[in-house]
Amino acid sequence: MTNGAQALIATLADAGVEVCFGNPGTSEMHFVAALDSVPRMRGVLCLFEGVVTGAADGYARIAGKPAVTLLHLGPGLANGLANLHNARRAHTPIVNVVGEHAADHKQYDAPLDSDIDALTGWSHSWTRRGSSPELIGRDAADAVAAVQATPSRIATLVLPADVSWGDGGVPATPVEPVPAAAPDQSIIAEIAKVLRSGESSVLLIGGPAATERGLAATDRIAAATGARPLVETHPARLTRGAGVPAVDRLGYLAEQATRQLDGAEHVIVAGTRAPVSFFAYPDKPSDLVPAGATVHELAASDVDVVAALEALAAVVAADVEPRGAASSLPELPTGPLDVRNWVKVIGALLPEDAIISDESNTSGIFLGAATAGSPRHDVLSLTGGAIGQGLPVAVGAAVAAPDRPVIALQSDGSAAYTISALWTMARENLNITTVLINNRAYAILRMELERVGATEVGPKAGSLLDLARPDMDFAEIARGFGVPATVATTCAELAEQFRTALAEPGPHLIDARIPSLF
Amino acid sequence: MTNGAQALIATLADAGVEVCFGNPGTSEMHFVAALDSVPRMRGVLCLFEGVVTGAADGYARIAGKPAVTLLHLGPGLANGLANLHNARRAHTPIVNVVGEHAADHKQYDAPLDSDIDALTGWSHSWTRRGSSPELIGRDAADAVAAVQATPSRIATLVLPADVSWGDGGVPATPVEPVPAAAPDQSIIAEIAKVLRSGESSVLLIGGPAATERGLAATDRIAAATGARPLVETHPARLTRGAGVPAVDRLGYLAEQATRQLDGAEHVIVAGTRAPVSFFAYPDKPSDLVPAGATVHELAASDVDVVAALEALAAVVAADVEPRGAASSLPELPTGPLDVRNWVKVIGALLPEDAIISDESNTSGIFLGAATAGSPRHDVLSLTGGAIGQGLPVAVGAAVAAPDRPVIALQSDGSAAYTISALWTMARENLNITTVLINNRAYAILRMELERVGATEVGPKAGSLLDLARPDMDFAEIARGFGVPATVATTCAELAEQFRTALAEPGPHLIDARIPSLF
Repeated sequence: MTNGAQALIATLADAGVEVCFGNPGTSEMHFVAALDSVPRMRGVLCLFEGVVTGAADGYARIAGKPAVTLLHLGPGLANGLANLHNARRAHTPIVNVVGEHAADHKQYDAPLDSDIDALTGWSHSWTRRGSSPELIGRDAADAVAAVQATPSRIATLVLPADVSWGDGGVPATPVEPVPAAAPDQSIIAEIAKVLRSGESSVLLIGGPAATERGLAATDRIAAATGARPLVETHPARLTRGAGVPAVDRLGYLAEQATRQLDGAEHVIVAGTRAPVSFFAYPDKPSDLVPAGATVHELAASDVDVVAALEALAAVVAADVEPRGAASSLPELPTGPLDVRNWVKVIGALLPEDAIISDESNTSGIFLGAATAGSPRHDVLSLTGGAIGQGLPVAVGAAVAAPDRPVIALQSDGSAAYTISALWTMARENLNITTVLINNRAYAILRMELERVGATEVGPKAGSLLDLARPDMDFAEIARGFGVPATVATTCAELAEQFRTALAEPGPHLIDARIPSLF
Repeated sequence: MTNGAQALIATLADAGVEVCFGNPGTSEMHFVAALDSVPRMRGVLCLFEGVVTGAADGYARIAGKPAVTLLHLGPGLANGLANLHNARRAHTPIVNVVGEHAADHKQYDAPLDSDIDALTGWSHSWTRRGSSPELIGRDAADAVAAVQATPSRIATLVLPADVSWGDGGVPATPVEPVPAAAPDQSIIAEIAKVLRSGESSVLLIGGPAATERGLAATDRIAAATGARPLVETHPARLTRGAGVPAVDRLGYLAEQATRQLDGAEHVIVAGTRAPVSFFAYPDKPSDLVPAGATVHELAASDVDVVAALEALAAVVAADVEPRGAASSLPELPTGPLDVRNWVKVIGALLPEDAIISDESNTSGIFLGAATAGSPRHDVLSLTGGAIGQGLPVAVGAAVAAPDRPVIALQSDGSAAYTISALWTMARENLNITTVLINNRAYAILRMELERVGATEVGPKAGSLLDLARPDMDFAEIARGFGVPATVATTCAELAEQFRTALAEPGPHLIDARIPSLF
């Protein structure tokens, strides 16, 4: 006999979903037991649901296909929501399986009972409640198809315990996702006309357009027409480095972004939206599109945006080749670590084909310049602004690409959110080098406190932005979670430890002590 | 000029809310800046919102009045939800302040934007959105009154950044909470008749009835009528120990609870609900009320349940005095630590007037017996089943009662959820002794795996319930967060380290290694 859980897992595996990141509870025990019945499904235990969902996000950004998460009832999903928020902004395909009380048990409002649908609603998830062992396979096949539509997205299957343990499960054949729509030639013609008009244009790309084919098309268009190319501020996955067309990112601070967009009469967006500021500030505009500029959308959200960029390039830049960035490494700096030099150590030593999970925040403001000519790499950035993404995403990326070096550039305050990700790195022996930029402050908030006009900062306010007293020793924390770790205070130490960590298999953490910028 | 944030904080302080547990972001910077304008408000920084909300829960369980939390937008609230779920089940008064984008900024769906109302709905929170600096003081006064109604509850004020920074704030005078309703004398007379009928009765108390006055009345009723007294499985705060009437708790496992309730013809509930099993199991009932028994509710939810118990005692036990538990300490055990002896070390050495934050889970199954005759103490238990409560609740309890020793009995798997609470213990120099019961397993799930009937456990399933490979070293983790820590493997080591930790001010963690029960 096949139970519901077995049918569900077999269906997922048949549809190419091969990794389950999970943190189960009692109501998910049959799902856990069923994992052994499907050899193709790998189970990866995380010690907190925020790690589970972040890992699933990182996995799919690199693998290009979804993982499944296993979450325990409403509170388990709640713990995973912040990184699902980031995944939603990244348009990452993820299939969540959230355990639910058995149907007969719901009426009793047992202690762990809650309104799971309210949470799936918040996450903008495609949602279905499993109703029977017979149908749960079909539900799973539909979920996998749903997340792989264009744009890709999150789906959540709510799995009552009795559907999981009930006999009569039927694995379902995979469902083909709805294919992306073809580019609209009339829009392409119209935008081609704008680009040829001689008026000042910005071409702002994001989403799937930030990987190599999209960047190549963007570069050709820019070279042929003079349009200023830009990548959205926080792309889910940006391919860059030597040989890859280099496109600057739109700045995080409204002041930077405004400068980059200054004078544009047209803002053409592809795979992203018209630029807005991250936060509101008194007496400053939220809409960053220059006054009087026209916004043009190259592709509706269900269109293959890379194909649209290539079609546009074929019209305006038929004979233009993309230009890859030159190989150029920063010199290895010397002296005590600071915000300007630690990134050069990374840039100088970055291995070929690395994946960077970047949550370095303010400490990383010079990272892009320092790694522009380093070997080709992918950067996974903090798409939704919900901190605590970096270490979990690194876990998922390393599971997806065991042969690529994964480098987590992680700020201290954000690391504290999902620090137990280190344990999963150790358990799975993942090739992740974490450089923990330990500046002992919520530096970004010190900066923002002034920017929002709250200029009179007293000792209580200052204390809430201060991560010293006591200083966190992330090397000790990492060792406690089973990850070998070292402390670096100079460029030479960071360089030596970074080289060593990359040369050895398995995870390593470098607690890099730098002064806060703010 | 007074801005909205200043008016809000001044109003809270005037209403007796004197502690703000927070983890702010850019949209809350004016609230942070305003803290220094209200000297009565203490700001306590936590490094993750699950710590913030759990600390607010622990604070109010001990202080008997609410703290305020400061949370950053929807993702910040999302991270705090699991412990708000526990607080909801505990009927703890908490006022959340959740920052929100400025009104004009909402339309742009900026990266951190989300549907905050969906989350407050999930948490069953009294919710109001601040609409102007002029009215936010009144909103705050209403929120404080709302949480202090009967039963007490959570409230959430959504605070748009422009309401926070806008001038024209007006502090409001406190609003009196609606007082608890008086007991219904006809119900009391009816239940008195049941108790005198000679039929077998259970008196199951919970909520505010689990503290000393309620226990005294319960004990008198039981002594006079022969009713079996029981406390709900997971009381928010249970007073016990030498001199306090001893009432057994209803067991966590349905099998235990069924035995305790066996033969009852009447189940009288006071301050809690009719007993149900935590989870559903195939072919087992969820409703734990014995077949044919009648459930009687002594007091509706808006009634002063302690007054109702005392009124009932006045009728059926007018001349009966409550009987305090005898003082009786376990002998200090010897040998390697195990699940039966570690609790005796705690019982033997528990200081007077201690507060125990208990998230020892399966490792604590013998804790109640071992501490029954220890000096009087309060136990704060895991009310909603969402793990990761114990360390944050200890933080809040220690802030509420700086002169009482706080003891966190914490299992390893649950500790990993909100481990950064250790940092706040260190920063605030809180008198918390954490005994980390490190059995290197999700032991409760190993037990549940069999109980749900998933008996064929393969290596993948086993791996998901196993917290070894690598072993976590919580002493190292604690030191990394600034908390002095030691490792105990024998009873003698635990006893010595526990004594030392209690004698020294500030936090200490003992990583107590015991074999898993399952």
